[in-house]
Amino acid sequence: MNIDKNFTIEDAEIITVGTEILIGQVLNTNSQFLASSLHDLGINSKHQQVVGDNPERLYEAIRVAMGRSDLVILTGGLGPTKDDISLEIAAKATNNTLASNHEIEQEIEDYFEGRERDFTENNLKQAIMPVDGISLHNDRGTAPGVLMQNRFEDERDSLIALLPGPPRENTHMFKRYLKPELEKYSNFEITSIYIQTMGIGESRLASILDHYLANYSNPSIATYPEATGVVLRLTYRHEKGGSTDALYELLDEIRPYIEEYEFAVGDTPINELLFDSLVSVDKNISFAESVTAGIAASGIADLPGASQVLQGGVITYHNEIKENVLNISSELLERYGSISSECAIEMAKSARKMFNSDYAVSITGNAGPTAIEDKPLGLIYIAIASEDGVVVKEYNLSGDRNIIRTRASQYAYVEAYRFITGK
Amino acid sequence: MNIDKNFTIEDAEIITVGTEILIGQVLNTNSQFLASSLHDLGINSKHQQVVGDNPERLYEAIRVAMGRSDLVILTGGLGPTKDDISLEIAAKATNNTLASNHEIEQEIEDYFEGRERDFTENNLKQAIMPVDGISLHNDRGTAPGVLMQNRFEDERDSLIALLPGPPRENTHMFKRYLKPELEKYSNFEITSIYIQTMGIGESRLASILDHYLANYSNPSIATYPEATGVVLRLTYRHEKGGSTDALYELLDEIRPYIEEYEFAVGDTPINELLFDSLVSVDKNISFAESVTAGIAASGIADLPGASQVLQGGVITYHNEIKENVLNISSELLERYGSISSECAIEMAKSARKMFNSDYAVSITGNAGPTAIEDKPLGLIYIAIASEDGVVVKEYNLSGDRNIIRTRASQYAYVEAYRFITGK
Repeated sequence: MNIDKNFTIEDAEIITVGTEILIGQVLNTNSQFLASSLHDLGINSKHQQVVGDNPERLYEAIRVAMGRSDLVILTGGLGPTKDDISLEIAAKATNNTLASNHEIEQEIEDYFEGRERDFTENNLKQAIMPVDGISLHNDRGTAPGVLMQNRFEDERDSLIALLPGPPRENTHMFKRYLKPELEKYSNFEITSIYIQTMGIGESRLASILDHYLANYSNPSIATYPEATGVVLRLTYRHEKGGSTDALYELLDEIRPYIEEYEFAVGDTPINELLFDSLVSVDKNISFAESVTAGIAASGIADLPGASQVLQGGVITYHNEIKENVLNISSELLERYGSISSECAIEMAKSARKMFNSDYAVSITGNAGPTAIEDKPLGLIYIAIASEDGVVVKEYNLSGDRNIIRTRASQYAYVEAYRFITGK
Repeated sequence: MNIDKNFTIEDAEIITVGTEILIGQVLNTNSQFLASSLHDLGINSKHQQVVGDNPERLYEAIRVAMGRSDLVILTGGLGPTKDDISLEIAAKATNNTLASNHEIEQEIEDYFEGRERDFTENNLKQAIMPVDGISLHNDRGTAPGVLMQNRFEDERDSLIALLPGPPRENTHMFKRYLKPELEKYSNFEITSIYIQTMGIGESRLASILDHYLANYSNPSIATYPEATGVVLRLTYRHEKGGSTDALYELLDEIRPYIEEYEFAVGDTPINELLFDSLVSVDKNISFAESVTAGIAASGIADLPGASQVLQGGVITYHNEIKENVLNISSELLERYGSISSECAIEMAKSARKMFNSDYAVSITGNAGPTAIEDKPLGLIYIAIASEDGVVVKEYNLSGDRNIIRTRASQYAYVEAYRFITGK
């Protein structure tokens, strides 16, 4: 590319291509991801557009965007079918020349050779690339991305990036390949600090921090509700490589108000924190799940290398199974019910034996839709068994069935993490 | 309104107003809801736009949209603050006159009288309405919506609707008040048929159906990749209450090409299909999961009333657990490995006994990141045990770790569903 060396990206615009968005079949999650990623790079967005796979309308959308934005990110329409016209139209709208790229041809052939899937001539369409652009590798699919510049000589300098539509390809390609390119053209950056809290609601936290939320714009504070609790995000937009002292001064100021609710700094998800804490003490874990029915165990198995720490788990959806598989006595179940701290404790102890694990976490409760055993909707017990004994916690969660189930699993991770690390 | 009596809405366009969308802080769920609602009314959408609370940019966006669409729906920016400029700008962009509406003034005062919230003069701003438009009542907040027509005499007939941004106000107002108005101006509706397939990739299916994908625009066919396989959607836009024969004729024509891959008609997810099939034969199920580690069981527990069909499950992440908990012999594990049809069969049989269930489904395989037991990444075995014996299937799946795990669970549902229903 031969863009002016003083060129910087101030304004960016996202164009999503896809009938499935226009007819409301899928949510436009790519736009949100890209918008928030651009924001983190210190790049403004003033417009977003969505258009279908129609050559004229797509051409028009790109021309309008190139005329008002320094960077246009086009997502979707990069696949192997005839409907996938994004690259052809983008090249036309920016005066770029396309040709087949032999390296990419080879990669596509290799991709299919390693898999028992049918290769068709259509797939080779994905080797067509701009002669003067940068191709962005697709680690999670076949369609490569593209970054190229507007080559109409009488027009302003601007860039256009093309990313594939499937969200997992889109987000990965942005983070790994496009973002480093864009960073070259931005004078600003955003530094953020995340604080994960538990046990305080968003509106209460907002009222405690009211003064800071209302009066600080840079650095600023925002609150986001997550399954584990409210996450605080402190954000500071500053010159690249500039001082971030103002951000840490703000953190010091608010710390006393939030310390008792804080369980982690950073945005590492709690399943990873728990995994890391187990690895660091060289211990393993198992699960006994009733209401969550496998969500907790599978969230640990999500992480590569899970076999280092995950022994196994048991899903005891029925009382009969709690009795027969986990040897919970029918007396206990009759006296306290399956949604009880007593049952949670026995489940954790029994799972620890069954799976011969250092720790065992049990989750029992009611996610609805109706009350069970006269216990209210949202009542959850979490127990953690270790060689030193068992602890149990009670929660009253709100939300629909699957919110409660997800949240219960997340809370189980937090409790186990705190238990193991003493935090 | 004095719109031409032959006016119909063919094309609609959604404009979302809000900085929180442009910086990626929130997902644009309103656009999806409105797009899918318009689609169901037989109204096409060719564009969507997102702009911030900026007068010039909003004006421009509305003018562009009014020039190409019969209906523009603007969401957001109807609140009581100075930033809320949607109505003022929309009136200017369509030559409408605004004035305070006394009925609405009264309603707003009544709303605050019934609540312990502070009424400010700002709130009265929401009584400002177009002199010649229709106001749409807000049952869930204070900002009323608006429907008005373009009043520039030399321009085409078109309508603009303004809805509040908060999703629960937006969707409710659309359904209850705006939709009935729009139905007066639409002569069409959409009928769709979904066919869920398995075992064929999107590009191969596209090449098989090439003739239909390329030459049929109404009814039309589109393909969508889902975890279970490719979903085909046949769509037909036709006059209200008119014949849908053309759609079913197209279905009959393509059926021979897809029959062997088809496992369900309709868009009910496979976990629900499996759940319903179990309920209809009054049988229950359990799971023995290795690689999926609880995803399969928890996907059934996602459904309200899961305890009708789900007995429980066991997660045997380690061979030691397969031996000790499921009594898989160490000889079998040494000879065939845990990623084998032999192991899958024993896991299913053993789980069926352990949980005393009518059916048991086992999943074992390798989701990576590296080869295990010299078995390739993506190799998965799924077995289903019943009183009549056991069946086992082998799959070679591609994708990253969590795609493979999710897909393996979905495939297990499909296999169990086919086994139970004979489809």
